[in-house]
Amino acid sequence: MKLSVALIALNIAASALAQSVTSPDVAPDGRVTFRLWAPRATSVQVHCEGVKASEMEKNDAGVWSLTTEPLQPDIYAYSFTVDGVKTLDPRNPLIKYNLLNIDSQVHVPGPASLPWEVNDVPHGVVHHHFYKSAIAGDERDYYVYTPPGYDPAQARRYPVLYLLHGYSDAADAWTSVGLANVILDNLIARGEARPMIVVMPLGYGTMEVVTGGWGRLRNRNLWQTNLEKFQKTLLDEVLPRVDAAYKTEPRREDRAIAGLSMGGAESLLTGLNSLNQFAYVGAFSSGGLGADFSKDFPGLDKSANAKLRLLWIGCGEQDGLFAPNQRFCDWLTAQGIHHAWVHIPGQHSFRVWRPLLAKFAPLLFQEASGSDPNL
Amino acid sequence: MKLSVALIALNIAASALAQSVTSPDVAPDGRVTFRLWAPRATSVQVHCEGVKASEMEKNDAGVWSLTTEPLQPDIYAYSFTVDGVKTLDPRNPLIKYNLLNIDSQVHVPGPASLPWEVNDVPHGVVHHHFYKSAIAGDERDYYVYTPPGYDPAQARRYPVLYLLHGYSDAADAWTSVGLANVILDNLIARGEARPMIVVMPLGYGTMEVVTGGWGRLRNRNLWQTNLEKFQKTLLDEVLPRVDAAYKTEPRREDRAIAGLSMGGAESLLTGLNSLNQFAYVGAFSSGGLGADFSKDFPGLDKSANAKLRLLWIGCGEQDGLFAPNQRFCDWLTAQGIHHAWVHIPGQHSFRVWRPLLAKFAPLLFQEASGSDPNL
Repeated sequence: MKLSVALIALNIAASALAQSVTSPDVAPDGRVTFRLWAPRATSVQVHCEGVKASEMEKNDAGVWSLTTEPLQPDIYAYSFTVDGVKTLDPRNPLIKYNLLNIDSQVHVPGPASLPWEVNDVPHGVVHHHFYKSAIAGDERDYYVYTPPGYDPAQARRYPVLYLLHGYSDAADAWTSVGLANVILDNLIARGEARPMIVVMPLGYGTMEVVTGGWGRLRNRNLWQTNLEKFQKTLLDEVLPRVDAAYKTEPRREDRAIAGLSMGGAESLLTGLNSLNQFAYVGAFSSGGLGADFSKDFPGLDKSANAKLRLLWIGCGEQDGLFAPNQRFCDWLTAQGIHHAWVHIPGQHSFRVWRPLLAKFAPLLFQEASGSDPNL
Repeated sequence: MKLSVALIALNIAASALAQSVTSPDVAPDGRVTFRLWAPRATSVQVHCEGVKASEMEKNDAGVWSLTTEPLQPDIYAYSFTVDGVKTLDPRNPLIKYNLLNIDSQVHVPGPASLPWEVNDVPHGVVHHHFYKSAIAGDERDYYVYTPPGYDPAQARRYPVLYLLHGYSDAADAWTSVGLANVILDNLIARGEARPMIVVMPLGYGTMEVVTGGWGRLRNRNLWQTNLEKFQKTLLDEVLPRVDAAYKTEPRREDRAIAGLSMGGAESLLTGLNSLNQFAYVGAFSSGGLGADFSKDFPGLDKSANAKLRLLWIGCGEQDGLFAPNQRFCDWLTAQGIHHAWVHIPGQHSFRVWRPLLAKFAPLLFQEASGSDPNL
């Protein structure tokens, strides 16, 4: 009896201790302290983007901790490994959602001028749509950002950016992790980007390519089916729905397509093979094209320059996909196809894709509508 | 050199093993097998709603597992505890998001007639809004569900249900966990509920009440400030924005308010004290009213019956808040205030709130609009 009371008291104290832990703890100079209450664990590591150190140290109360060097203002993904098992930070509601790999995130705040900082500016709305896809054979979703001031009751129409997520992401990745809505709000408020609609579809032609886990990436046939069916869901299902439900300018010179990683490959495959639909094409850290680009883009040559208002290839310089992207740019050059090749420091991460979107979006739809002689 | 190669090979094999684990694994008879790869752990438990067993057993490959008895079709929250540390199921993307306590979820599928099963019926849209609250002093969000067929370009107007989440939830709880949009889609498709707009605001008057953790619940002054400021954000900020942006019927007889737990208390406090704004009031497993109901509802008496088209109190029979809810119903009876008191088996869980919403929504807005003699 006494023992069980003592055990209950101990459990309550332990639970209170677990809940008194603050993590992540961001100091004004950008140092981040990660903490985890795990008295019975024998080793705990923290794996945080941009941080080399990982071994955490335990104090007498069973709380493991690690303090980083000062970090640049940014949003960093991290997780703990407790005796070999990955866990989220239980004290932190800011997560990086993903179908295969959920992480925690820490926001080291920076000046209001950073593209992803939420500012007191007019905000757009993010609309979540659901439909039954005849092509993919499943119930699926897509998101639509409408800019501040968008009013379906008014006549004004807007250009549209189709923005595609990467492999293992869900359809919400560009808003909930990439903060595309925040980035657009800020650019529009500063007059640096034209008000635009942004459509963020589910980027899989077949969910089988992701529900089976990373191993499915080795199945080249499945990958091709995925890419081809995705293009059909986008062009035959999502695009007509968006043009019917929103005040879009439904013309190629008011339509852009861009994406990250798998979504970068999808943007190139969809955009460059459908120039009657898109005048602007962007690819951030793209991955998943075939070895022979001429097979992915049959007949693509310099005649495309007359239709392409922008072809923009971006990548992080420490990304494993940097070399293939450079190789693709070399191939474009050999074909005489105009393009921009933009690289910034960074790996295969939203820490690169948020800045790339902030560089790319201001370049869109800057020519006067309706003046395209190539239609 | 050889050793490090062997270690790398071992790590790759281990990682492949971790990724080959299937969890949760739902059998056709409703048995669920939970699995976690944790070869170095000394004890692993799974805590799943509706399941008594928790101790998992390890096999020779370091995979811990537990198989349940057959579970009723439903959506169950669960988590693992590895050597005392709570973790999500790393193999499962279905999570129950929450500001203080993120869990995994397992869906045991059932017949299409269950309110929360996604069916091939017309789907509404969920709109995510962001604004700077002058009352709360922060940037915050709310969600708006528009029913299938809603068209801002047409004249048709819709009644509105304000639907409030519980303590520790974020503004997305009623859609991402409660599946309110799926439930409404299904009810509307079957003709069992009137097409309506559902507004799901952030339910905190001050974020301090939740960012500080569960301990803040003991601070009665902070709790009162939270409840009062929430009502002001709802009535002075969210409601006018919704009536301006959507095709609402902006009248009390076309407006309902309901919520769960803290949101139940907020619905009662807001609705019963603002009968000039709401004709329908619902509270699911409500918690957080004061000890003296006459102080929370000054002047509320049977004269309210003429204005109230529905006052609906629901609760799970195994909920710790069942007794206080029954006591509140007794108080209503003593005041002569008509109400429904609905209880179903279950605890303080979305397993109760999804069915309660499915019972409540069909009762709303069934009287012809504009016929209220009490305006």
